[in-house]
Formats: sequence, C-alpha cells, structure tokens
Amino acid sequence: MNFELNQLPFRTVKPREAGFTMAMDKGLSPREAEDFISVAGDYVDIVKLGWATSFVSGGLDAKLAIYREAKIPVYFGGTLFEAFLIRNQLADYERLLEKHQVTHVEISDGSIDMQESEKYRLISHFAKNYTVLSEVGSKDASKVLAPYKWVEKMKSELDAGSWKVITEAREGGNVGVFQSSGEARGGLIEEILNFVPKEKILWEAPKKEQQVFFIQALGNDVNLGNIAPNEVIPLETLRLGLRGDTFHLFLNR
Amino acid sequence: MNFELNQLPFRTVKPREAGFTMAMDKGLSPREAEDFISVAGDYVDIVKLGWATSFVSGGLDAKLAIYREAKIPVYFGGTLFEAFLIRNQLADYERLLEKHQVTHVEISDGSIDMQESEKYRLISHFAKNYTVLSEVGSKDASKVLAPYKWVEKMKSELDAGSWKVITEAREGGNVGVFQSSGEARGGLIEEILNFVPKEKILWEAPKKEQQVFFIQALGNDVNLGNIAPNEVIPLETLRLGLRGDTFHLFLNR
Amino acid sequence: MNFELNQLPFRTVKPREAGFTMAMDKGLSPREAEDFISVAGDYVDIVKLGWATSFVSGGLDAKLAIYREAKIPVYFGGTLFEAFLIRNQLADYERLLEKHQVTHVEISDGSIDMQESEKYRLISHFAKNYTVLSEVGSKDASKVLAPYKWVEKMKSELDAGSWKVITEAREGGNVGVFQSSGEARGGLIEEILNFVPKEKILWEAPKKEQQVFFIQALGNDVNLGNIAPNEVIPLETLRLGLRGDTFHLFLNR
Repeated sequence: MNFELNQLPFRTVKPREAGFTMAMDKGLSPREAEDFISVAGDYVDIVKLGWATSFVSGGLDAKLAIYREAKIPVYFGGTLFEAFLIRNQLADYERLLEKHQVTHVEISDGSIDMQESEKYRLISHFAKNYTVLSEVGSKDASKVLAPYKWVEKMKSELDAGSWKVITEAREGGNVGVFQSSGEARGGLIEEILNFVPKEKILWEAPKKEQQVFFIQALGNDVNLGNIAPNEVIPLETLRLGLRGDTFHLFLNR
Repeated sequence: MNFELNQLPFRTVKPREAGFTMAMDKGLSPREAEDFISVAGDYVDIVKLGWATSFVSGGLDAKLAIYREAKIPVYFGGTLFEAFLIRNQLADYERLLEKHQVTHVEISDGSIDMQESEKYRLISHFAKNYTVLSEVGSKDASKVLAPYKWVEKMKSELDAGSWKVITEAREGGNVGVFQSSGEARGGLIEEILNFVPKEKILWEAPKKEQQVFFIQALGNDVNLGNIAPNEVIPLETLRLGLRGDTFHLFLNR
Repeated sequence: MNFELNQLPFRTVKPREAGFTMAMDKGLSPREAEDFISVAGDYVDIVKLGWATSFVSGGLDAKLAIYREAKIPVYFGGTLFEAFLIRNQLADYERLLEKHQVTHVEISDGSIDMQESEKYRLISHFAKNYTVLSEVGSKDASKVLAPYKWVEKMKSELDAGSWKVITEAREGGNVGVFQSSGEARGGLIEEILNFVPKEKILWEAPKKEQQVFFIQALGNDVNLGNIAPNEVIPLETLRLGLRGDTFHLFLNR
C-alpha cells in the first residue's frame, strides 16, 4: 500500500487461500498484461484466460511468460477444456498444459452434458498433476439447479480432488447464483455456505453490485472471480472498506 | 491459432469478403493500436475511426502508419464525412483522405437529410477513387424505415458503387435494425436478406447478444461491425463455436 | 486538432475555467496514463484518482510524475479524504499531499456525516494551501436533498473557499442530480443555475446520455467530470458538435 491508514480490516496476503481474487483476461496483449501486473499484481491471485480466448489471441506465449515471471498462476477457461473433451482430444489438452507449464486446470460442464460420475473421474484424474478448479452451474439461464443439488455437487467435486469450486456466473453475471437481473439468490448462497467451507468456494462476481453483496454478506475474505483486469483495484478498495459501498462495513466492527 | 482443435467450422481468412470484422477505434493511442493488432490482427479486417474522433485524437498520423504497416484498412466514420459535407468542404475531405493515404470511405446520412439521388451521386463519385462503404439507417431512433425502403436503398447504393452497405446501429446498438432495447428486428433482417447478398452487408453489432443473434441466424461468415477493439477476440471465439453461446452451433451440423 | 473544419462552436482552451473536463483514473498504469495523455492531453483539464484507488495502485509515484510533466493537475478522490478524516489522520493526509506535490484537494462528505459548519471550516483550512474542490450530494441514493438545500450548500462552500463545487453522481451516474435510472433531475439543475455561476460547478456525468443532456441544456462550456479516460475524446466530439447527438446543436445557432 502506498501510505498509512489506521483501522483497516485484516486483509490476507499472497499466497492467499481466502480473500483471493481471480481476474479474467479475455485477450490482453503481453504489454497490457505487464501494465495490469504493475498496478494490481499484489491483489490478483490467479488469472483465467476466459473461455477459449487463448485459442485465438496473439502473443499467448509471451503473455504466459509474463504471468509466470510475476508468479501469478494462469488457467484456461473451462469452455476450452470442454471444447477439447467433446472432440475426444483430452490427451492434446494435457500436452497443451504441459507445453505452457500451466499448473492449474478448470474442469467444467457449463456447455456440455456430463454424467456426474464422469466429472468426478476427470477431477480426480487431473488432480494428480494439476491444481483443479471445478465449476458448478450451467451457462444456460434456463437450467436452474435446486439448492441441495448445488451443495451435493460442490461437496462431491471437492471430495474428488478439486482445490476450489467455482460458482458459474458468466462474464455478464446473470446466471447460476445470480438471477437474470444480476441479483444474487440469497437463499441459495446461504444453503451452500451451510455445508461447504467458505475458503473452498470461488464466487464469480463480475459486477460491482455482486462484489459488494458478497463482501457485505460473507466478509472481505470471500474469494471472488471473473473480475475484469481494470476492476481488480476497485475491488481491492471494496475489500478494504475504502469505497462508498463498504466504507462503514469494517469501521463499525 | 495457437493450438489444434478438430471439427471447427470453416472460417474465412484474410483478405475476407465474408465473415469479416470491422472494429471501431474511438481514440486508441498508437501504442494501444499496436497492442490491439498484436493480439487480434488476424481477425480484424477493417478499422473505423469512430465518427469524428480522428479530428481530436492525438497521435493520429502515427496510428494510421501502424494500421497501414499491418495492412489493415482504415476509414473515417460517416459522421466526419457528413461534417465536411454540411460545411461544403468535400474538397477538403478528399484532400484529407489523400494526405493520409486512406483507401476506404464511408458515405452516410445518419445525421443529415440528403436526397437519395444526391447520395447515389456521392457514392459513384467516391467509388472512382476509393472503396466505398455506405450506411443505411438514421442515428435518430424515431426515424423508422419500412423494410421495403431498407431493401431499395441498399440495392441502389450497391448499384451506385458501394462495396458494402452498413446497417446503422450506433455505438450503443439501439437503432436501425435493432429496437431501442437492443433486440434485433428479425422480420426486417429476413426481408433484407431476401434481396441483398449477404456478403454485401455489414451489420453493426456492438453488443454480444447482437453478435450471437447474427451468427446464429446467418452463420459465422456474417460481416459484423462496430466491434470494440477488446471484443474482437471474444467475437472470434463466437464465430468458431468456442464460447458458450455458440458452442453447439457448429458441432451439430 | 488534426484538420480544418469550418463553423465549429467556440471552444475554451487550457487553462480552462469553463468547458473543462475532469477524468477519473481508477487505476491506470503509468504507461496507460502516458497513452491517455498522448491521445487526449489537450482535452483533460484535471484528473481525479477515483475514491481511494491511489491507496492500492502500483506505480503511483511514476504516474503522478507523468501527470505533473504533462501539467495536468491531479487530486485524490473525496472518499480518501473522508477515510483519513474519520480516522483522525488529517495531518497525515496533508503530509501525503505535500509529499506528492498535489495542489488540488477534494473536500467531501459523501460517505460520512459532517456538520455543515465543520465542512466549511475544512474547506477554508485547505483553501489556504490548496485549490479546493468540494462535493455536494450523498453517495446514498436514499438521501435526497431539497433543491434549496443544494443551492445553499453550494453557495456556502464557494464562500468558504472552494474553487469549484462538484455535484455527486458516483462512477455509475445514478445518484445526486440524477435519478437512479441515470436520468437528470431537470428542475433541480435549473434551480441550482439560478443561484450558482455555471463555471463554478463541476457536474459529474459519467454516462454519454448525461453528457449530452448537459451540453444541450447548458452549452459546450459546461464543466463535466467522472469521465472515463477513454471517453474524453468522445466527449470532446460532443462538445464540438461532431457526434450524432449534438451534430445540429451548434450548426443551427
């Protein structure tokens, strides 16, 4: 931090298990990634290369080297995993991860149908060599999951070897634990937290209102994801109670 | 592309007549233009310097040189043409195009009233020395054109010498073939395609939902425009069926 | 400007007292700030480091040096002032301003309750050594101020030593003189202008519709703030009547 302010809330530091921020890079250039790290490197814990943008983005190797140099883990979006899987190219996918020294992998079924047992098998398989993030929830707004099913899936995926489970929200923040309006499904979130440890969940929360909601409801050590690179600094101020929306949250405690 | 994926849909390559992407630069710095090209150069077919932003943006010459070097044609937004026209400065406009070695020009009447015959005359005039894009549709949401008028205008402008006709949507994507809500006017679009060849139309589609609509309705070789620079890579994944919204579109064929 | 266009409206030049543009930097890297200045330096009159983003942004010293070099004044967002104030650290805040050679300061009470007399005292105090911008209006959408109270506060703050008074709108543009929908409260604005000189007011107007509203209602020499860096060039075209929304505004006069 650039100067001294008293009475700030406790804030976890790197490497973080709680209060961590996953940023979504959907096609930064190497130089833009450098800029991003120079400003927000201390507050971004992991970077997702959104869905399959890594397939077509120029400068991928250079950018991955920059993130590696900054010791910020990177993983490919789950949609890329699904694209390889549905084409029976999982071996190619593993070669790709190896080639790029990628250490984290997302296992998801947001765009494809998959037997639960198959998903657990894949999580276990990848967990042998990678840190696995698995995602629960469909990208399809019409596929609503009952709360007990959310809990069951999340617990089973963690049991299968996932490091953290991600709740799907999309870049737009309008599916999964959010209604199509972008509002959070409070009851569902409460139910999930009754059964799954908070630090094992990564909530996708691309919109400021959602970030505010999670910080207010769950504390500043909530794990949040799908944060646009230029929103990582604004999010950090929310976590510290240094933006209007959370200004009084930590002062009053 | 950075790696191998099977069963991808056919995708046109540069120089493209179909499936091309027009990006709107509304004031990138030279360095930002370099970054943009380094990431998405293979997928951007033409760049529009939005409306009259080129009039006030610093670094214009350097940026135009960068696009020229990358062999990406650039044209000034139609509003700039109209600003020169309404001031009786068309000769100045032509000098400007020459000075900057600009090869493409947009002829539009989105903000001014113009006789149809006058527009056709201007298209013919500029078509002698430039590749002409002409735009149909008003920036004024209250001026709704009947479908047969859309078709008539588009055909006449192509006959007059336009390389492609653009359907106005503005940066916000809420006029012309879109309703003020941003939703596409399906009937109008169908009527247009009955009479005008698909590759001759450039649909302005700044919002993701609109891009998805056009790709679903017309295929991945639809020409799309007014794409923000940092949305060119996301659009390319939509065209390839590598984002949730179009994931199954090409797999099932 | 890059070329000649006749019949443009009069436009103030730097250093501007009227028609000035305040941009909000919420975490640009030094290089991004350079890019911003290279494109829009002539049209940005002052930069606000949004709320407390300066507390956590990497590269702060280098960025401040770049703005200083470009002779663009910078000030810390009012929320940072309030964060120091509520912690009884105002002396630290003044040391911070001195250390960074910051010449402008925002005095606000958007997130805290403050006696009016206390606010006037603080304005007077800081006005001795700094150019003071003070902000009227709460960040809390539920706290609606009667028009006569707006006028009274604005006049008193100017009397106390403020260089300009800012009307709060937040980054989202949905409080203060705007309704939650983002629409402007026309009656309130008219009332304010009856009693407060136009050049003494800085209207926060982050959304294009709001900028268009103010330029249409008050002229192109209205002071506008909370403009995103990449929207400064688009705003400049609005001021010059070179974008569809204001194309005819100055031509017809």
